[in-house]
Amino acid sequence: MAAWGQRLAGVRGVLLDISGVLFDGAEGSGVPIAGSVEAVARLKRSRLKVRFCTNESQKSLGDLVELLQQLGFDISEGEVTAPAPATCLILKERGLRPYLLICDGIRSEFDQIDTSNPNCVVIGDAGESFSYQNMNKAFQVLMELENPVLISLGKGRYYKETSGLMLDVGAYVKALEYACGIEAEVVGKPSPEYFKSALQEMGLEAHQAIMIGDDIVGDVGGAQRCGMRALQVRTGKFRPSDEHHPEVKADGYVDNLAEAVDLLLQHADK
Amino acid sequence: MAAWGQRLAGVRGVLLDISGVLFDGAEGSGVPIAGSVEAVARLKRSRLKVRFCTNESQKSLGDLVELLQQLGFDISEGEVTAPAPATCLILKERGLRPYLLICDGIRSEFDQIDTSNPNCVVIGDAGESFSYQNMNKAFQVLMELENPVLISLGKGRYYKETSGLMLDVGAYVKALEYACGIEAEVVGKPSPEYFKSALQEMGLEAHQAIMIGDDIVGDVGGAQRCGMRALQVRTGKFRPSDEHHPEVKADGYVDNLAEAVDLLLQHADK
Repeated sequence: MAAWGQRLAGVRGVLLDISGVLFDGAEGSGVPIAGSVEAVARLKRSRLKVRFCTNESQKSLGDLVELLQQLGFDISEGEVTAPAPATCLILKERGLRPYLLICDGIRSEFDQIDTSNPNCVVIGDAGESFSYQNMNKAFQVLMELENPVLISLGKGRYYKETSGLMLDVGAYVKALEYACGIEAEVVGKPSPEYFKSALQEMGLEAHQAIMIGDDIVGDVGGAQRCGMRALQVRTGKFRPSDEHHPEVKADGYVDNLAEAVDLLLQHADK
Repeated sequence: MAAWGQRLAGVRGVLLDISGVLFDGAEGSGVPIAGSVEAVARLKRSRLKVRFCTNESQKSLGDLVELLQQLGFDISEGEVTAPAPATCLILKERGLRPYLLICDGIRSEFDQIDTSNPNCVVIGDAGESFSYQNMNKAFQVLMELENPVLISLGKGRYYKETSGLMLDVGAYVKALEYACGIEAEVVGKPSPEYFKSALQEMGLEAHQAIMIGDDIVGDVGGAQRCGMRALQVRTGKFRPSDEHHPEVKADGYVDNLAEAVDLLLQHADK
């Protein structure tokens, strides 16, 4: 593999995944990953642009940022690309009234949205709310529509909590896609539109930016398909087999965000 | 379309789907579809061979046959190809110990199976037991295996109860396949092995048999891929759009089993 200097040449901005890179989640709380608080602070003191890009769909953006601030991170709502606010824009633009298959923690994001007489389904990481009854209701709403619209907050396969790996929203999206014979519109990684909106917020072209994430498919593969470079951290949901993934090869594998930032500050923007 | 005489020429045996063709299910019971009790009786008095081929995975074979007999059908356990008994054979042959993601009604079929320290997952139509907790347990079992084995009792998309369309096991199979990056082994329609075992029980070649079902993909498409002919009935989960399905075209569409049997007795085996 090429030397780091070559691999990181010309990088002017960094997109950071949040869960599994900044902190490890637990029910309603979390612990910072060692070195990550300081790594974010160092990045922000550098000449590199920094933005956060998450598929979080269990907490509202406000709650997520508040949690991260409590853990010591220098972060504000305006620096985060998150799927729920992006979805609300789409719903309003297209006059869509969703049946919401989401968890209670994120419901407040949709307070201004009309949910009467639904003409689409919005699915997030609903956790325990992924009951058979709720899934079946979403299925029935879609089957009764002439043009079924399913909007998904991300399409992650799983994430890691301190108690172990947990099924993510993508699995349930696949279930509804198969049952209804439709394809969901993904608002979140790995959707190219989602990465592009984050790049736009940074004012950078794809080749000038690098994604740092723990998900080999959603973070690394998605960013690369967009023309960005991407590093995978060996924290969060990382599994050793990811380094031999049949389809996706990261531009580099690092132990954690701290190592990624060491390398970036040494080699990027040269 | 060719005349019925041509389409049914040489048929010597009939495979009958059960739910949606013989009866419409409701919670734990059911009502016969008009004309179906007599249609089965007429078929059995004819020279045509008859076998039942179901993906039922909520009731044990014994309970299903008992229900059908109570509804007036002439049917016995030995005449039915069902996924649970077929799965038990596979588990024993390969020394597999399943985590069972199934509903209570079919659990007795697995009484003789060792389920300690699971090295595979068996998934059926678990209904209300498709909780997030149970799905996540199945996911975690699979992710901890070096060679994850997921065996699915059918792969139906949905079925119809008197209260409406209901998500079937296939949706949840897709969820686990996506989350784990694996492919399930399907025991049931539309798996070719499953149709072949039913044909073998009848002592017929595929071109001599016709499937009658209400599922355009699972029944009709599956049987046709096996070399059989197939009729779709306009009962059960049938929807008018099925007659314009982008991939599957039945050899004929009939209002119900009674009409199918009328046509078969008139034209088959000539």
